[in-house]
Amino acid sequence: EQGCSDRCSNPSDSNIRKKEHEKMEKYQGLKEEIEKCGSDVCMTFLPCYCIFVCTDLLPASGGEKVTKEFLHELLNILLGYICKSSRRSGKVLDFHHPHQLKEGLEGFSLQLTDKPETLEQILVDCRDTLKYGVNTGHPRFFNQLSSGLDLIGLAGEWLTSTANSNMFTYEVSPVFILMEEVLLKKMQGIVGWSDDEGDGIFCPGGTISNLYSILVARYYFYPEVKTRGMRALPQLAIFTSEHSHYSVKKSAAVLGMGSENVLMVKCDESGKMIPVELESSIVAAEERGLVPFYVNATAGTTVYGAFDPFNDIADICHGHNLWMHVDAAWGGGLLMSDRHRMKLQGIERAWSVTWNPHKMMGVPLQCSVILIKKRGLLQDCNELGAEYLFQRDKPYDVSYDTGDKSIQCGRHVDVFKFWLMWKAKGSEGFGSQVNKCLENAEYLYDQLQRRTGFELVFKNKPEHSNVCFWYIPPTMRGLPPGPDRDTRLHQVAPRIKHRMMEQGSVLIGYQPLGDKVNFFRCVFSNPATQQEDVDFLLDEITRLGNDL
Amino acid sequence: EQGCSDRCSNPSDSNIRKKEHEKMEKYQGLKEEIEKCGSDVCMTFLPCYCIFVCTDLLPASGGEKVTKEFLHELLNILLGYICKSSRRSGKVLDFHHPHQLKEGLEGFSLQLTDKPETLEQILVDCRDTLKYGVNTGHPRFFNQLSSGLDLIGLAGEWLTSTANSNMFTYEVSPVFILMEEVLLKKMQGIVGWSDDEGDGIFCPGGTISNLYSILVARYYFYPEVKTRGMRALPQLAIFTSEHSHYSVKKSAAVLGMGSENVLMVKCDESGKMIPVELESSIVAAEERGLVPFYVNATAGTTVYGAFDPFNDIADICHGHNLWMHVDAAWGGGLLMSDRHRMKLQGIERAWSVTWNPHKMMGVPLQCSVILIKKRGLLQDCNELGAEYLFQRDKPYDVSYDTGDKSIQCGRHVDVFKFWLMWKAKGSEGFGSQVNKCLENAEYLYDQLQRRTGFELVFKNKPEHSNVCFWYIPPTMRGLPPGPDRDTRLHQVAPRIKHRMMEQGSVLIGYQPLGDKVNFFRCVFSNPATQQEDVDFLLDEITRLGNDL
Repeated sequence: EQGCSDRCSNPSDSNIRKKEHEKMEKYQGLKEEIEKCGSDVCMTFLPCYCIFVCTDLLPASGGEKVTKEFLHELLNILLGYICKSSRRSGKVLDFHHPHQLKEGLEGFSLQLTDKPETLEQILVDCRDTLKYGVNTGHPRFFNQLSSGLDLIGLAGEWLTSTANSNMFTYEVSPVFILMEEVLLKKMQGIVGWSDDEGDGIFCPGGTISNLYSILVARYYFYPEVKTRGMRALPQLAIFTSEHSHYSVKKSAAVLGMGSENVLMVKCDESGKMIPVELESSIVAAEERGLVPFYVNATAGTTVYGAFDPFNDIADICHGHNLWMHVDAAWGGGLLMSDRHRMKLQGIERAWSVTWNPHKMMGVPLQCSVILIKKRGLLQDCNELGAEYLFQRDKPYDVSYDTGDKSIQCGRHVDVFKFWLMWKAKGSEGFGSQVNKCLENAEYLYDQLQRRTGFELVFKNKPEHSNVCFWYIPPTMRGLPPGPDRDTRLHQVAPRIKHRMMEQGSVLIGYQPLGDKVNFFRCVFSNPATQQEDVDFLLDEITRLGNDL
Repeated sequence: EQGCSDRCSNPSDSNIRKKEHEKMEKYQGLKEEIEKCGSDVCMTFLPCYCIFVCTDLLPASGGEKVTKEFLHELLNILLGYICKSSRRSGKVLDFHHPHQLKEGLEGFSLQLTDKPETLEQILVDCRDTLKYGVNTGHPRFFNQLSSGLDLIGLAGEWLTSTANSNMFTYEVSPVFILMEEVLLKKMQGIVGWSDDEGDGIFCPGGTISNLYSILVARYYFYPEVKTRGMRALPQLAIFTSEHSHYSVKKSAAVLGMGSENVLMVKCDESGKMIPVELESSIVAAEERGLVPFYVNATAGTTVYGAFDPFNDIADICHGHNLWMHVDAAWGGGLLMSDRHRMKLQGIERAWSVTWNPHKMMGVPLQCSVILIKKRGLLQDCNELGAEYLFQRDKPYDVSYDTGDKSIQCGRHVDVFKFWLMWKAKGSEGFGSQVNKCLENAEYLYDQLQRRTGFELVFKNKPEHSNVCFWYIPPTMRGLPPGPDRDTRLHQVAPRIKHRMMEQGSVLIGYQPLGDKVNFFRCVFSNPATQQEDVDFLLDEITRLGNDL
């Protein structure tokens, strides 16, 4: 009687109690043995957790053994998943429609009830959650800019959640706050800023990082905006390329600047911003009475992976006294590679940089950074000095209480996994990883030119790991260019993707862009991917699209 | 030779190579044995990982055994930490100043280098990181609104990071997207909204949730703001109480509305907004030419834990056609308790609600939700329809691609740990947890009145788990009220806190508020905390402050 049900916080329902009592009787002997034994011996008594509920875990008295056993069993489940994800023989996904999952497949119910489940059932729920999810670590998952599963990064995440802390003050996160400082300095140095410049913060994703850059730029030119709002300012204009990420527009909408005041600058065939177009856009905007103040250049566009000409853009920004931001969310990783970092030449002239280590550097989601060249701006722009957090009469150097730099107040610890990966790989390890991903892209580019039925979306060798292409099924190969062919071709990628999802063998994205109908975009950011996977992808597209 | 160094991505440096070769020779025999054995046997050969680097982990060929062993060893470290955190005999923190940690304590170096470390060193780094951090799960950590370490929530986080996915589309996160839907509906029902209303999204923290509410409210009244910006709108005004969270002002600054257009409404002695003050503020603002559109009411203020009078505020909002938001980041958890949910009466009349399960419900950081009553607004307000993500020609119901509802684009999976905890506790389990925290607060409130040397900041019984008080050292007990006493009293809490940090035995926050000098704020959100911990806190304050 001094067992589970007494410690349980939900003892009201008599059915639950009765069931528990039955189980208790059945397993009482076993439980006693477990409680007597040390944790190592305990491991041999699996699965004793089937009689326990969550209130038997720590911090309940005597919960140590159950906790250890529960987490060990969880580890076995996660390890099984990790090992399976690494095998090419396993599926990337096992697709089900929303209604199928909602109806409950093989007893997997998403619904929540008033009563607790046993730990045994919790572990079953964990297994099912992984089973019906998408295996983003699979070497043949090419669907997103973030992929792969770095085991050191994973270890970092597990530790982070165990520490369960918050980035607002040094007081509660001394080590993580200092790691953030170390990493930000490191990244600023790699961008090419000098030791006496550079500031920044880890953000929940690249869009928020880009939003920060506009926010700080606006404050830099018009500090009164903080108290008085946009109505006290002239009508500002933002410039970004037509291939840039939609977060620039989204940020302008959120910040009360209006998405129509984001002016889209034309790109060349390979997706790079054309400097003279930027210059003439700025002049035209001024003539319309707008006040240009911010230019976003992109290092690694989302679809083509293009790098804007940073030095030319910096010259123009300098000439017009505009804030230059570089959105290197995707392309920043290339700075780690001696072979590829020259593609970002001129980035050091930017006043702010977005860089997402969770993309090209393989850090688990989320890990995104905004770097600001001028120190103190971020703090001035965002601080409100809430006294319940940021007391000035603390016994340590309160400049380490970085929470007031942020707009989020409480901030998830995204830094540790990244720090740990850097320790484990060294800067050089990240460089090798980037090189490998770009080699895969080059291999795909070569294969596309050699194989029948494939057509490149743009002819130049890709600069990043994005490769864009159409698959032309045999029946379409003789068709002349024109609207009829376009209409048919537009449907090919979605139909192949549909079949891919049903088969679950591989996953790749597609989209239209400008006047170009749906094409595949393959991206490489998972260092587990090998050339054989590239071959497999092309074979699979051919196999699935051959009859279209 | 076919071992580690060949698979290593950083083979360039000859010193590293040499060291590795030496190690290889030394451990070759051991390694061979490990590679021959199954994983269970392998466990007996600890620590073989000392010869490996991260490139030996999965997905490297043959990396399965090393991976298992590495993660098992990590689990041992984390389990050791978890067990220790649950013990009262352990310290809450082991304080070091920033410069001490930066200099490197006992070989723990934060600096990052070009070369990789061995897995053995990585595990040492993990141990050190935990060692110098703050134990937020300790039953005597009262410093923040989030505390405790829920083991099921932790399991959820570990699985989430293993799945390493992103919330933008159903395609890559089918299960998590549906869990978000289930949880949002559940929470909307608990708030009191009908089945045919309610929308929402998980956000990176309560500040961002509050920001969302203002963003959506602004769009609801002035949809043109999305494209044209704030300059196309009249000068809007926001109302919130002087005790409310600073995120309302911060959001107004970010959104380009200006922090001075956030009008602070007076509170009564216990920190509740005074409805007639709200009414007169609205009228006064209108007379000044401002356009009121949004009122933030608070359920559980940050310092006092006060609940605003929601029905009165709702009446005023209804009369003036204003958006009513309830910031229940801290107080939302009380909705789970039959005993306490009446404190939020009238919340169902709000048009939006912020609710952070990572606070009162004990979900690991971060887990915050914005609920919006009117469906579709969130999507309309934020969508930009990026075609590389949100294709309309997908083979499933694309209304499940919820990413375009968000401002973040990529979104961390914060939902699974919460879902898993709900499964494990049931709604009732959360209710019991909340009740227990509030019982601790009542116990502290009683003790403060019984013990000598303590003074309550406000006389009423606390509504939430916040208890605010001064400690008056013996030498100050005879002093008459006035500036001299205030000056001295103002220094008491910081000095006691300083000593607390040095001792590491307990951690509690303090702050001034309005005309009140520094006082302690104790909050209870960790279900591991018992009455004995409350007694300990008061004993410790007395012991540390007795001579001041």
